[in-house]
Amino acid sequence: MSSMIKIAVDAMGGDNSPKKIVDGIIHHQKYNKNIFYKIFGDKDKIQNLIDSKINFKNFEIVNTLNKVSNEDSPLEGAKRGKDTSMWLAIESVKNKDCDIVISAGNTGALLVISKLNLNMIENIDKPALSALWPNKKGMSVVLDLGANIECSSKNLFDFSIMGASLYKSLYPLEIPNVALLNIGSEALKGNELMNGDVNVIISDGFTGNVALKTAEGTASFITSELKKALGGNLIGKISSLLNISNLKKFKKRLDPRLYNGAIFIGLDSPVVKSHGGTDFIGFSNSLDVCCRIIKGNLIEEIKRNI
Amino acid sequence: MSSMIKIAVDAMGGDNSPKKIVDGIIHHQKYNKNIFYKIFGDKDKIQNLIDSKINFKNFEIVNTLNKVSNEDSPLEGAKRGKDTSMWLAIESVKNKDCDIVISAGNTGALLVISKLNLNMIENIDKPALSALWPNKKGMSVVLDLGANIECSSKNLFDFSIMGASLYKSLYPLEIPNVALLNIGSEALKGNELMNGDVNVIISDGFTGNVALKTAEGTASFITSELKKALGGNLIGKISSLLNISNLKKFKKRLDPRLYNGAIFIGLDSPVVKSHGGTDFIGFSNSLDVCCRIIKGNLIEEIKRNI
Repeated sequence: MSSMIKIAVDAMGGDNSPKKIVDGIIHHQKYNKNIFYKIFGDKDKIQNLIDSKINFKNFEIVNTLNKVSNEDSPLEGAKRGKDTSMWLAIESVKNKDCDIVISAGNTGALLVISKLNLNMIENIDKPALSALWPNKKGMSVVLDLGANIECSSKNLFDFSIMGASLYKSLYPLEIPNVALLNIGSEALKGNELMNGDVNVIISDGFTGNVALKTAEGTASFITSELKKALGGNLIGKISSLLNISNLKKFKKRLDPRLYNGAIFIGLDSPVVKSHGGTDFIGFSNSLDVCCRIIKGNLIEEIKRNI
Repeated sequence: MSSMIKIAVDAMGGDNSPKKIVDGIIHHQKYNKNIFYKIFGDKDKIQNLIDSKINFKNFEIVNTLNKVSNEDSPLEGAKRGKDTSMWLAIESVKNKDCDIVISAGNTGALLVISKLNLNMIENIDKPALSALWPNKKGMSVVLDLGANIECSSKNLFDFSIMGASLYKSLYPLEIPNVALLNIGSEALKGNELMNGDVNVIISDGFTGNVALKTAEGTASFITSELKKALGGNLIGKISSLLNISNLKKFKKRLDPRLYNGAIFIGLDSPVVKSHGGTDFIGFSNSLDVCCRIIKGNLIEEIKRNI
């Protein structure tokens, strides 16, 4: 069992948990055989949901009824105690019992409890939250998305190394191409964010968060306008029906579940945050991110490059 | 002629000038009868392009061969002298000869030359660059988009008054609803930018510029993915053809020419910046923005509210 990837899963975070989490694990292990899921949360509920759909050799449930609420401030979340499903999941990574931890719960609390339990990678000053964005040629890694409002040039430099290492661990065959998100004419401007010429985008947390939310808001606006245009009359409905396979392809390319899984890097173990509002498919995709990070040796890659 | 709106037009800025500019004026005056265009630039070229398509009572050409280049730094642009088409156009507003000035030229130079020539509105510390964005319910005014990288809370407060006044002058029947673009849970987050619950969005220039460029980049990414999906095979092409009127409606809603015309506010005369890359339709739309600002008494509105 030692060659297995061991994932610590907080089963109690996000909407519709633990059902979504357990369904995500069930879906994920269908296609990924050499994974062990250490699941933290309400054992009765979780066991009930698993039924016999996962081989007993591939999971273990650690029972706890205490949990961090979505409404908690980061500090309130941490103060709920050391027996929340989130805390215990992180602790199992700290104790080297698991390789990586994932939660769909309270982001702020996840960052704070991770910082309380895990050590920084040597010579990295601040951890950063990073995510995957689609671009015209493939995918980009973007960081920081909000963990650090103010960043020094040293922080940004660290982010560039961590971001390139993350990209390399996720896409071993590709070459990372780093740029700083800025508004001048020298650096990467926002309107070049998604054309794919760079694939590692560095920014302070405030700017990165604004860019992320703006991209989400724009995508939501455009797709709602498109729906209005295509569904507005009979001809629109008929031609959309005729064209259903192409439209599905388009929808799939923009499906946020595909990009689910933000990665908190800079600590000596990676911490993955699934979107709280995603479904079991989205959660399964972020479990996939966990596996690729571990297989790609993210932490070793960062240490080697720093 | 005193009840006419007088627009000072820099004819030499942006791509494909002065042809685009003159064609824009010709197009604009077809639907707007009570406007006088004072046009600054190469008189021979401009007169040739106008031919007899504009009533001689509605325009005048001020000849100058000197102009600001797109490649100039803001200061280089200003140093080209007081006889560039841009400088002379701004000066005509300073001298109260015209009501408003518009240019499709170098943005930085336009801001600097405007600041050199025009006074600030009393009690406003910094001017801001604002633009119109579509949202799910209509349009929003967004500022600052890059004129001020660092802003104090007083600046942001000024922007909110100027933004609300601008909104009111453009949409006299609507009620301005102001929010600060931020990343916390209290203020407006980027993903709510375009849902239409607020229509005046305030930000420092760095953040606003990142948001603007990110929105542009995201829109470009999504429409290119949509084109790929719809044009990828025969069925896609046929159904798109069938659905052409709906797709055109969608395209029109996202047409950047509709939103052309950034407004530099805080000076005692409004300065309008057309996108350099737009065509004559886009330039005509920004002439329309000029008219609505003057009819809506923007500067008086700001002075009354400050």
